[in-house]
Amino acid sequence: MSEEKRTEIGALGEFGLIDKLSEGVKIYHDTTVKGIGDDAAVYDAGDHFVLLSSDMLLEGVHFDLSYIPLQHLGYKAVSVNVSDIAAMNGTPKQITVSLGLSNRFSVEAVEVLYEGIRAACEDYNVDLVGGDTTTSRSGLVISVTAMGTVEKDKVAYRSGAKESEILCVTGDLGGAYVGLQVLEREKQEFLANPNMQPKLDGYPFVVGKQLRPIARMDVIHEFGALGIVPTSMIDVSDGLASEVFHLCKASGLGAALYEDKIPIDKETYETAAEFGLDPNTCALNGGEDYELLFTITQADFEKVKNHAEIHTIGYMQSADKGKALVTRSGNTIALTAQGWKHF
Amino acid sequence: MSEEKRTEIGALGEFGLIDKLSEGVKIYHDTTVKGIGDDAAVYDAGDHFVLLSSDMLLEGVHFDLSYIPLQHLGYKAVSVNVSDIAAMNGTPKQITVSLGLSNRFSVEAVEVLYEGIRAACEDYNVDLVGGDTTTSRSGLVISVTAMGTVEKDKVAYRSGAKESEILCVTGDLGGAYVGLQVLEREKQEFLANPNMQPKLDGYPFVVGKQLRPIARMDVIHEFGALGIVPTSMIDVSDGLASEVFHLCKASGLGAALYEDKIPIDKETYETAAEFGLDPNTCALNGGEDYELLFTITQADFEKVKNHAEIHTIGYMQSADKGKALVTRSGNTIALTAQGWKHF
Repeated sequence: MSEEKRTEIGALGEFGLIDKLSEGVKIYHDTTVKGIGDDAAVYDAGDHFVLLSSDMLLEGVHFDLSYIPLQHLGYKAVSVNVSDIAAMNGTPKQITVSLGLSNRFSVEAVEVLYEGIRAACEDYNVDLVGGDTTTSRSGLVISVTAMGTVEKDKVAYRSGAKESEILCVTGDLGGAYVGLQVLEREKQEFLANPNMQPKLDGYPFVVGKQLRPIARMDVIHEFGALGIVPTSMIDVSDGLASEVFHLCKASGLGAALYEDKIPIDKETYETAAEFGLDPNTCALNGGEDYELLFTITQADFEKVKNHAEIHTIGYMQSADKGKALVTRSGNTIALTAQGWKHF
Repeated sequence: MSEEKRTEIGALGEFGLIDKLSEGVKIYHDTTVKGIGDDAAVYDAGDHFVLLSSDMLLEGVHFDLSYIPLQHLGYKAVSVNVSDIAAMNGTPKQITVSLGLSNRFSVEAVEVLYEGIRAACEDYNVDLVGGDTTTSRSGLVISVTAMGTVEKDKVAYRSGAKESEILCVTGDLGGAYVGLQVLEREKQEFLANPNMQPKLDGYPFVVGKQLRPIARMDVIHEFGALGIVPTSMIDVSDGLASEVFHLCKASGLGAALYEDKIPIDKETYETAAEFGLDPNTCALNGGEDYELLFTITQADFEKVKNHAEIHTIGYMQSADKGKALVTRSGNTIALTAQGWKHF
């Protein structure tokens, strides 16, 4: 490759690169309701929408086989994709799984990976319908595509939020990031002393959040039961702050978040403290929680205010008011999105 | 990974592994009309079917960046997936592209790759709607999923062939395999003498078949115009013999092929000879032609018999008669499928 100019990908970052690559993309079909730029693409199938989303997990980048059991990895690969369908307020129906396997994998090891994939398919009620299986010269590659459906009047885009609407998040945040710190510490100790047993027992919740995240289809089903259609939604894969930025950008708004409303589990809090990390920073900038961030109208507030798994954490405001974090001490500071750096 | 038993993947092969992994797969939705086991999965969208297919290309396994230009690679990644939709008699509508990029890639290089992807999208009239872009610790990874549609009464499965139906193939075969030999030879000569200019000018057709294959959407559109619905179909990615085996297995039949009817381009023929290869073997067992192999009823024979791009190469017969090749000398021998060994 001889090139006159060379720009490092890191100089643009993942989102900058995606923006640049998306520039020249044309849409030929009017049945493509939504292309690049949301959690899933939207195709008009006539009486309903079909959703399509793909995610790739690469060894050494997204996972480390020295601490993630293959069964959990299979489960996680499905969860990550189901979470994208959930973020459109949709229901997953089919997935394809493409695997690149080095010769270090035995048939038995691949079967264990597939046990996790099948367990996730059962839990999410989704059909494994195909994919590709090939050898890999390097590490393990798992590429999953999820196809789902949603009623046309129920689809939730990133772009639908309106001023004064309420910003909500499911579950709790920061756990997966703190869990990763525990796993990394045990790995380093194991490398220093291979006879050591890993000490993971004290951290079941955060380690579980990291190794075996659950896509929040439970909440999607409850939206149906409660008669709620989120006005905008995104899944929290890159950290809360980064996702708030995405919702704001897509909706042309600003937002205000209350630091003391951000849900953090007790174990996340204590483990973060043990590592000398600020739990709020873990919640705001740690990735891989796979919770849902969404907005609802003020009229829907009554329906969620006592819901154990839905937390109101702020509100949308006009773009000129910016993205603000109201700290525990009552100060209003600019929210910054660190997110996950893939490059 | 501590395992009691270790079976090498190579002992099962790609199709054996897929069969084994497919065993425990359950289908939960009655809208899933076809799962694993065809060129694409089939979902019942109400008044039509939606098709879904994924393929992954890995550096060092499926391509060698020392001779495939990035633009062609982008084009090829799309063609391979569009070909799977074509093989169901469908029309591609959307694709997602997931990329794993090592830091050896500049933004400019990724843009060239995307130029090829966008060119293919334009040629196939398909919308690029999403995907994933991430760093890779090892080589370049390209994972594409194609979503397409087909009218319910027009879908072609591998399993629909009947006894005495006519076996047809599009275009010509063996070119991509012979083209690969040319590229490999030039690579070795370049490695031995880096000042040497590659001599590819004499082989435009076979090198083009290898580097920039075209999915046969032209033939799919003609099927519509001619009023033909193939009774069974598969794309030729692993070599003609291997695909005949797949059609026979899925349809519960045998087949007879006439060696002298297998279409081989003059350049393929001459280049194979130059390499001391039997052109028939290249056509039967060389991979990556991305032509279509299909069956039609005898009643449809008149519609295709003078078509320049459709060749009748044999017929289906009962399973007990086996899979036979009638050689040029008139002998009938058992057809063997060597195919592509991915493991």
